Amino acid sequence: MEEFGGIDLGGTKIEAVIVGARSEVLASARRPTPVNGGPPAVAAEMARALREACAAAGVAPSSLTAAGVGSPGLVDGDSGAVTSARNLPSWEGTFDLGGTLSEALQTRVLVGNDVQVATRAEFELGAGKPYESLLGVFWGTGVGGGVILRGEDWLGRGGAGEIGHMVVKIGGERCACGRSGCLEAYAGRGAMEARARRQREKGKKTELFKIMQERGRPRLTSSVWERALEKGDRLAIELVDQAVAALGAGVGSAVNLLDIEAVVIGGGLGIRFGEPMAERIALAMHPHLFNDGQPPAVRVAALGDLGGAIGASLLARRAVGA
Amino acid sequence: MEEFGGIDLGGTKIEAVIVGARSEVLASARRPTPVNGGPPAVAAEMARALREACAAAGVAPSSLTAAGVGSPGLVDGDSGAVTSARNLPSWEGTFDLGGTLSEALQTRVLVGNDVQVATRAEFELGAGKPYESLLGVFWGTGVGGGVILRGEDWLGRGGAGEIGHMVVKIGGERCACGRSGCLEAYAGRGAMEARARRQREKGKKTELFKIMQERGRPRLTSSVWERALEKGDRLAIELVDQAVAALGAGVGSAVNLLDIEAVVIGGGLGIRFGEPMAERIALAMHPHLFNDGQPPAVRVAALGDLGGAIGASLLARRAVGA
Repeated sequence: MEEFGGIDLGGTKIEAVIVGARSEVLASARRPTPVNGGPPAVAAEMARALREACAAAGVAPSSLTAAGVGSPGLVDGDSGAVTSARNLPSWEGTFDLGGTLSEALQTRVLVGNDVQVATRAEFELGAGKPYESLLGVFWGTGVGGGVILRGEDWLGRGGAGEIGHMVVKIGGERCACGRSGCLEAYAGRGAMEARARRQREKGKKTELFKIMQERGRPRLTSSVWERALEKGDRLAIELVDQAVAALGAGVGSAVNLLDIEAVVIGGGLGIRFGEPMAERIALAMHPHLFNDGQPPAVRVAALGDLGGAIGASLLARRAVGA
Repeated sequence: MEEFGGIDLGGTKIEAVIVGARSEVLASARRPTPVNGGPPAVAAEMARALREACAAAGVAPSSLTAAGVGSPGLVDGDSGAVTSARNLPSWEGTFDLGGTLSEALQTRVLVGNDVQVATRAEFELGAGKPYESLLGVFWGTGVGGGVILRGEDWLGRGGAGEIGHMVVKIGGERCACGRSGCLEAYAGRGAMEARARRQREKGKKTELFKIMQERGRPRLTSSVWERALEKGDRLAIELVDQAVAALGAGVGSAVNLLDIEAVVIGGGLGIRFGEPMAERIALAMHPHLFNDGQPPAVRVAALGDLGGAIGASLLARRAVGA
């Protein structure tokens, strides 16, 4: 029997899954991403998460057919090296993530871009199944994108899919990436929180930070935003409106360029807000569509929080031709 | 010996070429696009242009192996029908352009999107030859785009490449397409002229319209803009600066999404302004590139004004497997 491992490396957490022959999830484990110790500490914690998932599934790591990793940063799929994973602390240089994990787990490890493998998972197993071309939009701390055309991943020269850094407003807001007017500067949860903090400092009333404290969170998580919207918090409504408008423009631009069949909305905020927000994004996109008689389908990612780890396992499966 | 015909249908002129076995141009002809009579009159003039080119090359139209057409509007490549070619007068509905021309010329006629065939020509024969993936940007009355990935045309569901309607400024200038904030609303020559006229009405000084009159032109053609820049006309400089900034943002967005190897700048303004302006566009794009360590090559279209017609002939060549 064949089992595959999948690890999704996120800015705050590591998700690991063990999947079976039909990509069904046999077990999963989650660990926080270490903030100290740099890449080696992160790799050690990733190995630990996969071992935990293996133990829960009753499989030895070394008997996995292969394992896949979805990582932020610039990924060299051939060597397994990851360069400047900016979301992660002290990861400016290049680190041999694939080799380190392969050594630790005694199995073959393939490394891919986190957003691209999550898009692939939605394409093969989730909301993207009916389509041959799609754009994955992962709306979380940042806004990531994955592109699938004619059923194939489109990676460009390795850096494709940066939908979060498409320009929606020349001369617009400063983005965490240092540029200005990026989609992410309006729609990324990190940027939304920064704007909320600035507005609060200017004396604007909001319950966002009260909800955050009540829930014991260090930041404005997706669930904090959801609760604030439910309570009718004006600032939250305003900032989410701006994010939706920016997503409509950015995704609309991508559709005008590529005319893909479908857009799959995932990520922490995308999954948390779900179907009603996907509909709002589709509505915000529509006025920007050049071929507005033929809009793409807009769907919520179907695999939820495990989509990234499942997508990573698909990378392993494909690499061994299974 | 095999000869192919190619016809480029533009908003103001029709270009026809006859090419030989290695796509070398044997003869060409140009006619103005009729403003009266709708699609049938346009088709008749296209046939006339091709017959003229045939006569100059000493070939009977019926002995061409096939002919290709590059047309604006929504093109159905299988049937040869063209729908709502907005740049052309009275072309709102669907017209069987391929069938009509095939009947008139007694040869097989293939129809494709004008911008896509021009991009293809640059890819196969022009500035795009060294690359496997590229974006063609045709900067003229409007801003059109063509996408080639892994050496193949990417058409999406038939409507891909609308780079002119990527949003560069949410809530920005009104575009001729009716939407707002489109790249074309800043960079299209039509939009630039409309802005120049508004500024003049507000009392802004400019020599643009004087140059236009001196040259006996009904509109601000590419050569009028070029001359005004040479003369240091402030309004012309300002509007071209804005166009370049918008092109930098829009093309940069496309590069962030697709990470293509090269951008080829064509179209009336693109070719007229040439290499120095392509460099300015590359510079304007650079601050928006997420992977700014690996910018794409930015090149001027190498086939000049005949690129569209030559690209149309490639469509014919491909269809017969030559």
